[in-house]
Amino acid sequence: MAVTPSSISLESLDLDPAFALHRGGKLEIRSTVPVRDAGDLALAYTPGVAKVCSAIADQPELVNDYTWVSNVVAVVSDGTAVLGLGDIGPAAAMPVMEGKALLFKQFAGVDAVPICIDCTGVDEIVETVARLAPSFGGVNLEDISAPRCFEVEDRLRDLLDIPVFHDDQHGTAIVVLAALKNAARLTGRSLGDLRAVVAGAGASGVAVSRILLNAGIGDIAVADSKGLIHEGRDGLNPFKEALARDTNRAGLRGSTESALAGADVFVGLSGSTVSEEAIASMAQGSIVFALSNPTPEVHPEIARKHAQVVATGRSDFPNQINNVLAFPGVFRGALDVRASTITENMKVAAAEALASVVGDDLSADYVIPSAFDERVAPAVIAAVAAQARADGVARQ
Amino acid sequence: MAVTPSSISLESLDLDPAFALHRGGKLEIRSTVPVRDAGDLALAYTPGVAKVCSAIADQPELVNDYTWVSNVVAVVSDGTAVLGLGDIGPAAAMPVMEGKALLFKQFAGVDAVPICIDCTGVDEIVETVARLAPSFGGVNLEDISAPRCFEVEDRLRDLLDIPVFHDDQHGTAIVVLAALKNAARLTGRSLGDLRAVVAGAGASGVAVSRILLNAGIGDIAVADSKGLIHEGRDGLNPFKEALARDTNRAGLRGSTESALAGADVFVGLSGSTVSEEAIASMAQGSIVFALSNPTPEVHPEIARKHAQVVATGRSDFPNQINNVLAFPGVFRGALDVRASTITENMKVAAAEALASVVGDDLSADYVIPSAFDERVAPAVIAAVAAQARADGVARQ
Repeated sequence: MAVTPSSISLESLDLDPAFALHRGGKLEIRSTVPVRDAGDLALAYTPGVAKVCSAIADQPELVNDYTWVSNVVAVVSDGTAVLGLGDIGPAAAMPVMEGKALLFKQFAGVDAVPICIDCTGVDEIVETVARLAPSFGGVNLEDISAPRCFEVEDRLRDLLDIPVFHDDQHGTAIVVLAALKNAARLTGRSLGDLRAVVAGAGASGVAVSRILLNAGIGDIAVADSKGLIHEGRDGLNPFKEALARDTNRAGLRGSTESALAGADVFVGLSGSTVSEEAIASMAQGSIVFALSNPTPEVHPEIARKHAQVVATGRSDFPNQINNVLAFPGVFRGALDVRASTITENMKVAAAEALASVVGDDLSADYVIPSAFDERVAPAVIAAVAAQARADGVARQ
Repeated sequence: MAVTPSSISLESLDLDPAFALHRGGKLEIRSTVPVRDAGDLALAYTPGVAKVCSAIADQPELVNDYTWVSNVVAVVSDGTAVLGLGDIGPAAAMPVMEGKALLFKQFAGVDAVPICIDCTGVDEIVETVARLAPSFGGVNLEDISAPRCFEVEDRLRDLLDIPVFHDDQHGTAIVVLAALKNAARLTGRSLGDLRAVVAGAGASGVAVSRILLNAGIGDIAVADSKGLIHEGRDGLNPFKEALARDTNRAGLRGSTESALAGADVFVGLSGSTVSEEAIASMAQGSIVFALSNPTPEVHPEIARKHAQVVATGRSDFPNQINNVLAFPGVFRGALDVRASTITENMKVAAAEALASVVGDDLSADYVIPSAFDERVAPAVIAAVAAQARADGVARQ
């Protein structure tokens, strides 16, 4: 991390357009009702508000009709795994959470409040978020480091009857699955035909592996910083142990690169690097998703020499795997039907909807739509809402 | 509390203009920066945002310049003492907290987020709010029942280096002090000449008594539901014991009404009633603030037969004692100078500024400005900011 000298002035920081844009923050609260005079005040505040409060006290579900709660998502982070920056703490995480809130509104009309919390214990995070729950229609967990993020999400999903969604896991997983479905279609294969290698067993690596398994991928091997995860490897946490059971049917050991020989798919979510030779050793018509940001595991132009489809996390190359394709529509769809949770099926439905937007325009450089494609959010919203109904978790 | 039949339809509820106005809530989140294309996204979100996060990690005070935190107040309630409705829980409290947030924005440009929390223990409330603190520039506590509200506020003020202000206490106290200063001026007396009786020893009663003591009132007697508080009375909580030491120099016992004989000032904050006879027994030129809502302790037209100045909490009689005259400007002034706390002096300065807006127009029906008087917020903001500097709690 670059050190910002404490003597530096705001004026000199603001020479950078990113700082200039962030000056004063990126969000504001606005009233949706007029308060021009005492008459307005008597409706929006006392005494008029008392009737609305009483009605909700009598009939709790009215909170969804007469407050903003059913349209508001808390974007909650403890600041321990922020972008590529790591554990920078809750205050320094705020610009990312504000950005997330901005995207929620921009892409799906969801009001989102950034909540950076000053505690990192699983119990503390869970109890804090649970206490805040009456104020929100959903909870988007963000940038909480693994493996705590898994337990935090699992426990909150059990505790709360509103959607809880760790975007670093599931947002990424949905977009990867969508892109991979289209890449398989382009290359004339089904997911069941594919053998994949996932580099990274943090939040996104675990979730991508899980969604690919649920979607019926042929086989998958997952590597963490110590190499491929396999049954019997020492020192695995419970989440990696479960992965060891469910993946790597061939019992491969060793490095990510060794596993790539003959593999159809590489998904990089690790911040590590993969050599050109390893990419070249993959099967014909291979699919390379080098998603680490800002530096992909392999440069996309190098990968493209050997692979048929290449995607990255960057906006300056084709096929950007960008969570913003998923999370706004996922929450909007869930909130629209007042879903009590976000099911695995709803995530898969979101991925299918996202993949379908590409349609007949499918090409090696277009397996996933642009973040600014206006067809994306409506497609995801409709699919998620319909699946919530099909899964029996919709409440309206 | 009126019971809302569970069979009632939204359409029929919405025939009431208060319900119609509340439909869908009263707030929204808006972006203050454009996100039209990938270039905007690269500044407001990744990769641009990373530089801003790193800078804040290096130099924490930059969070105030490059996020919305320094303009955002959390309006926190546990829903235990909502308006006159009592303990209706966090969900049913939300319309009030949204209303408060709306007033923060409308009257002083402060962004405020309603946070209704699902816990009522002092320790839990304190730890929850403390964990949220990195996300906010200030905390407005609201509708938390006494005596827990006193300890919650005291402990949070000790723990946090941002303003913490329980509006039911101090907002009311500031406006009462302002009105009383003007009423005393009108009737040719100083505060030191006045003997007051305060009915109510909950949040507002205690805070009003404290600010009047700090402002040098002649003497004050405070009554709770069991009668006048005096030294030696059994079963007083620590906050009432402190009041017993500091008030009621004459050692009066018995009822509020008995204490009114010869008193100059009555401040009703109790929800109880006071007879016309008791009001008539007060000193010549008496001052009656019957502030319970919606039913004042004594009807203002009855009180006006005997008192020189009458104020209520209602907008349909002269001299409305309305917290909105204080809290938006108090927070705006504190945030503008990044005050680490709100001192007693800052509250008194707010009251003096508020009183001064009335100026030469002072009359029996005009001891306090209207909530919609556009001179109010600027006067309060300037006074609070200046006093924060004078008290050494301003950080910019």
